Amino acid sequence: MPGVPPTRFAFLGPEGTFAEAALRSLPAFSGASEDAGQALPCVSDVLDAVRRGEADAGLVPLENSVEGSVAATLDELATGEPLVIVREIFLPVTLPLLVRAGTAVEDVRTFATHPHAYAQVRQQLASILPGVEVIATASTAAAAEGVAKGRYDAAVASPIAAARYRLTVVRDDVADHHGAVTRFVLVSQPAPPPPRTGHDKTSLAAFIDDDHTGALLEVLTEFAIRGISLTRIESRPTKERLGVYFFSLDCEGHLADERVGEALTALRRLCADLRFLGSYPRADGRTPKSVPDKASDASFSDAAAWMIRLREGRL
Amino acid sequence: MPGVPPTRFAFLGPEGTFAEAALRSLPAFSGASEDAGQALPCVSDVLDAVRRGEADAGLVPLENSVEGSVAATLDELATGEPLVIVREIFLPVTLPLLVRAGTAVEDVRTFATHPHAYAQVRQQLASILPGVEVIATASTAAAAEGVAKGRYDAAVASPIAAARYRLTVVRDDVADHHGAVTRFVLVSQPAPPPPRTGHDKTSLAAFIDDDHTGALLEVLTEFAIRGISLTRIESRPTKERLGVYFFSLDCEGHLADERVGEALTALRRLCADLRFLGSYPRADGRTPKSVPDKASDASFSDAAAWMIRLREGRL
Amino acid sequence: MPGVPPTRFAFLGPEGTFAEAALRSLPAFSGASEDAGQALPCVSDVLDAVRRGEADAGLVPLENSVEGSVAATLDELATGEPLVIVREIFLPVTLPLLVRAGTAVEDVRTFATHPHAYAQVRQQLASILPGVEVIATASTAAAAEGVAKGRYDAAVASPIAAARYRLTVVRDDVADHHGAVTRFVLVSQPAPPPPRTGHDKTSLAAFIDDDHTGALLEVLTEFAIRGISLTRIESRPTKERLGVYFFSLDCEGHLADERVGEALTALRRLCADLRFLGSYPRADGRTPKSVPDKASDASFSDAAAWMIRLREGRL
Amino acid sequence: MPGVPPTRFAFLGPEGTFAEAALRSLPAFSGASEDAGQALPCVSDVLDAVRRGEADAGLVPLENSVEGSVAATLDELATGEPLVIVREIFLPVTLPLLVRAGTAVEDVRTFATHPHAYAQVRQQLASILPGVEVIATASTAAAAEGVAKGRYDAAVASPIAAARYRLTVVRDDVADHHGAVTRFVLVSQPAPPPPRTGHDKTSLAAFIDDDHTGALLEVLTEFAIRGISLTRIESRPTKERLGVYFFSLDCEGHLADERVGEALTALRRLCADLRFLGSYPRADGRTPKSVPDKASDASFSDAAAWMIRLREGRL
Repeated sequence: MPGVPPTRFAFLGPEGTFAEAALRSLPAFSGASEDAGQALPCVSDVLDAVRRGEADAGLVPLENSVEGSVAATLDELATGEPLVIVREIFLPVTLPLLVRAGTAVEDVRTFATHPHAYAQVRQQLASILPGVEVIATASTAAAAEGVAKGRYDAAVASPIAAARYRLTVVRDDVADHHGAVTRFVLVSQPAPPPPRTGHDKTSLAAFIDDDHTGALLEVLTEFAIRGISLTRIESRPTKERLGVYFFSLDCEGHLADERVGEALTALRRLCADLRFLGSYPRADGRTPKSVPDKASDASFSDAAAWMIRLREGRL
Repeated sequence: MPGVPPTRFAFLGPEGTFAEAALRSLPAFSGASEDAGQALPCVSDVLDAVRRGEADAGLVPLENSVEGSVAATLDELATGEPLVIVREIFLPVTLPLLVRAGTAVEDVRTFATHPHAYAQVRQQLASILPGVEVIATASTAAAAEGVAKGRYDAAVASPIAAARYRLTVVRDDVADHHGAVTRFVLVSQPAPPPPRTGHDKTSLAAFIDDDHTGALLEVLTEFAIRGISLTRIESRPTKERLGVYFFSLDCEGHLADERVGEALTALRRLCADLRFLGSYPRADGRTPKSVPDKASDASFSDAAAWMIRLREGRL
Repeated sequence: MPGVPPTRFAFLGPEGTFAEAALRSLPAFSGASEDAGQALPCVSDVLDAVRRGEADAGLVPLENSVEGSVAATLDELATGEPLVIVREIFLPVTLPLLVRAGTAVEDVRTFATHPHAYAQVRQQLASILPGVEVIATASTAAAAEGVAKGRYDAAVASPIAAARYRLTVVRDDVADHHGAVTRFVLVSQPAPPPPRTGHDKTSLAAFIDDDHTGALLEVLTEFAIRGISLTRIESRPTKERLGVYFFSLDCEGHLADERVGEALTALRRLCADLRFLGSYPRADGRTPKSVPDKASDASFSDAAAWMIRLREGRL
Repeated sequence: MPGVPPTRFAFLGPEGTFAEAALRSLPAFSGASEDAGQALPCVSDVLDAVRRGEADAGLVPLENSVEGSVAATLDELATGEPLVIVREIFLPVTLPLLVRAGTAVEDVRTFATHPHAYAQVRQQLASILPGVEVIATASTAAAAEGVAKGRYDAAVASPIAAARYRLTVVRDDVADHHGAVTRFVLVSQPAPPPPRTGHDKTSLAAFIDDDHTGALLEVLTEFAIRGISLTRIESRPTKERLGVYFFSLDCEGHLADERVGEALTALRRLCADLRFLGSYPRADGRTPKSVPDKASDASFSDAAAWMIRLREGRL
């Protein structure tokens, strides 16, 4: 990502999904062609396109998505051919209720959307469209397309799908809980991370030989003693090796920060395996924890200089 | 659950999915009627049916499912009206390749399945059906139904769907990684947990006021010092309260174990909120960590008796 | 101790030492006879007098003493027949320079004191009495007596010794560092501790099977997670059992505090042995750490009540 | 110490004490003159002689001594002008019962020794010399000298004192607990430590701003996570700064060990002050904990090399 922005993107399709909306929110994308990039049917396809060099970067959902699968992304990044996250994108999730032009709410008999999206609008829908027939589709975009083609009367899909299929928005957002966001990550082939900004995040997969609490405590301790906050953690079984777990986690800070570098170096010793998944500017709009003085780069270099003197006998 | 088994079940539908297969694996189900219970379109619907008393128990996927949503289950159990898990069921996931009777593999032009299932068979499929057109459906059952109705040539779906739609199994399991399982949980209205078996699990949602590492360390420490192993942990943002996180976690042991009771009591003090989600026999086929002598019930009662004597001045 | 104060004391002699001064500072002592109690030659003698019932309480130095031995007290209390500390007394240590009436500083040729006291006045002495001959005595009282009898020209001893031997104070305090205090403890036979005051200390001896860092971390963790501060810790080898260590420690709080009771109960399980050495009002003049809300008695009882409800199935 | 051994020693006198015996046990001493070095009256005198260059090395007791003061040594090394420990010496403590030639045990009426030594022989003495008059002396050597001069009938002192004062040994060892040892340390002016032997110890003074348990947990954690065992720990108030504590501690390993170097560097950041007091071959005859693979030098360098590659973008 640093320097020349990638121009060929792969993303989790089909077109008109939230993934495309997230992609279009990228500055690097503003000057790009109309073509949003290559829409691919599953996370693995997107990542493989990047691995094979068919795309310069791939956009996949990581968390809380209404479309895709967190687990697929986590597992692929942790165990597939190495890739790195170079950017995160938070897309506010609005779930507009869409109909064909001319359809009145009273006339809606059938409603379609993806089951994940349905779970998020269930209460609102029961009050707006009581007794409607609910049809599950493979994606929200498929639901929108189905409305456009007259198969269903109404759908919940992304605003971008509304535009693409020229549907009418009867309610801007029928989500039961407003303020939901989906976190996407942009991944590329292994490369030095983008420069640190002072508000960065680092993603890791830490493999341990067993799922015992002590091992996780050890992992967390390496962060805590260096004043590094975790922003996400999840235990995941590995597919290939029975009894081996990994922790997928994000922490505050950048690979270039002394505290982060030292914590990762320690984890490298302690874990069965440790995979670095990228350092990138945080985009979640949250204020990072302030770094304690004792965990600043200056504090680390002072202590390192002291140790050099000590080993030379200069107390 | 203990005593009289529930007879009315709700499960994540449609019929013919892995959820129905999991339900049918229950002993309590063996004597039940042909009707597998009520198939409902989303996790919230299943749980609400139990909450309203329309079902005695509900079966929902919790982990690693190819059909449903982990997050939906975790979040609903953690923040919705209280329910408790009374049983866990691990269903081996085999992904048979299905066609209509008489279709040869060479003649397959279109293939349908749910995107999650597709992600798990991608490599095998590329070698068995190179160049096939892939169509995403809302569920694996929908894909099977589509094959039965002639909309697609082949599908990957559950064995139970194969039987239901009278499809031919051309490959028993086209999963790229064999041995995958989906974990379902059976939930009921709040009640004392089933008796402890010595091989139990306990599920919790621990809310903390902030996502700092220190708080998570505190939570884990309460388990570690009492010799309790965690088997799953996941951080989750809360929907309603900005900056409040919860940890969804499973640990070894039963609410009736002294070490578990004391750990939960401590967490109750430390956490902004702690929700008990059930103790139930573990069914994951893994050998639990042996409980150290110092964490046995006997050790706890000896120490408690000692403290009583001490406070009476009998050293 | 609570209720009727002891009237027969044993203390570390000889008479005129700091131990007698500490004893005289006790309120219980104000109405007692002129006789300060029985002066005994070593810590073990004092403690044995209490054990045999020859004295109701014994006063021995525990820390930072200029006369006695911390180790002897620590070891005897940890491994001898059980006794409990019922009070602590901090005696400001002033080290007056004493001569016989009529002796001028210029005429002092020989100076006597106990080696520990000498170590504390060395720099001052070199400036006040340059080139003086230094003689070590078995106690500061013996030095004072020696001056009285004409064996030495000057001594450093306790103010009480000055009075007893009718010596002249030429300098009020020749300590190189002012503000030193000696901590004495008053011990009795096992009994319920004095009532809690809200500003209490508890003393313990925690035996572990090996001197590994992990064991000590475990011990400290039990305090830290309950918001209990340690005020002193010291590792000690045991005399009888090779490779068994004990930690002699003092913490804030009282046996009657829920957090202290629970911490001790936990240590009882974890340690090879745990000996309670008493809870008593702290007298060190330091402001105790404020107890966090989560560690208050109310917080503990709320959580315990919650657990009872939980086990009855009332979520 | 490495290279040319020191030839001028200072030790805690007077002559004939256990300190002289410890000094004579040094290989470096075997070829030295008859003169054991300069006997000085207190720990500070010994250390100052080294600081001023009047002695090349000083021998002082650190632990469990029957003669000297642990606290004085700990405090002086922690807060005085910097010195380093270059060797530790463990001297088995035997406490022979000494009389003048020709004195029968039945004729002993008066007995003298230092109070610390008395505490260690009290029970034996009561059975061998029931009803004897006990006189405290300033050192065990003074007691031996007193017997030689006819002031007392019997004494307990070091075997070296027996030889020096030509006394008769009536009992080889009257210690109530056999196997006691005194630990002495040999200190020199600041210099690189002696080469590591694989069985080394490192001594430190770690200053923290407050005596809270959390701070001590932090300090211990830095050792524990790197597989370093502590062999001694003691909290000490500082003389000069109210409310500032230091922990005097010994750990396994050598400054040249990666794990020790990194732990000390971390403590340097975390502590208000950290003073290195020397790395030296351990002489306590105990088997050190085996260093876990993850804490070996090789493991540390592998991880450091990995971090360098990572920061260059080579995953």
